[in-house]
Amino acid sequence: MTAEEARRRFAAARVARLATADANGVPHLVPVVFAVDGDTIFTAVDRKPKRTTALKRLANARVNPRVALLADHYDDQDWNALWWVRADGSARVLEPAEPEARRAVELLAGRYPQHRAQPPDGPVLAVEVLRWSGWAAR
Amino acid sequence: MTAEEARRRFAAARVARLATADANGVPHLVPVVFAVDGDTIFTAVDRKPKRTTALKRLANARVNPRVALLADHYDDQDWNALWWVRADGSARVLEPAEPEARRAVELLAGRYPQHRAQPPDGPVLAVEVLRWSGWAAR
Repeated sequence: MTAEEARRRFAAARVARLATADANGVPHLVPVVFAVDGDTIFTAVDRKPKRTTALKRLANARVNPRVALLADHYDDQDWNALWWVRADGSARVLEPAEPEARRAVELLAGRYPQHRAQPPDGPVLAVEVLRWSGWAAR
Repeated sequence: MTAEEARRRFAAARVARLATADANGVPHLVPVVFAVDGDTIFTAVDRKPKRTTALKRLANARVNPRVALLADHYDDQDWNALWWVRADGSARVLEPAEPEARRAVELLAGRYPQHRAQPPDGPVLAVEVLRWSGWAAR
């Protein structure tokens, strides 16, 4: 799959999974909603997370900016319909007041009615994608 | 969510995402089908993968056994239905001829008709789960 096709499929997906790793290389994995702007992927967290794991991704990104995001399609009945696309990149943590973070929240609100109703008010993770890749069974 | 409930939901899921990281802590992410046996998760690859990335997970696990797997439910219309479960663990790479690998392929064939029709004939990744965790919106 071409990088452009991988980017197109990723940008159209509704959910992705974000992998970060800590300073010891221990991976961490969470599902995220996101918005793509060119070769940047934005995902946001609420300011007052109810669980500590919500911030693990940010702590990891601060000590090790290399991250990966994956969007995929699984069909239990038809493995010929399977595909996945991956974005490998470098993450920055934006504070909520930064202009780029505000722009990210606007993009997220544009994609998700739930974010429109209640915009995320915490830090934003901005991932500069270094490589778009993917695979499709057919 | 309790560890037992997280384990139960994970074991019932049909697809998961596997995060590994290389010696430099760069994460790698792929979707996998799998089988759970107690606190061990098995996933297999074909012997002759058509793409080099199919083996990246194995190379990573050999230099850095810490891995994470995630199964989740996303519902674009109803964010109250969202949940995810994560297995954090330590991976071993089994060669196809090992008894434990053969057992894993049997378990995979029992879960997936596609694996029954064409059993995976490459190495098996066995993940000893150190922690089951999860979250549900309600």
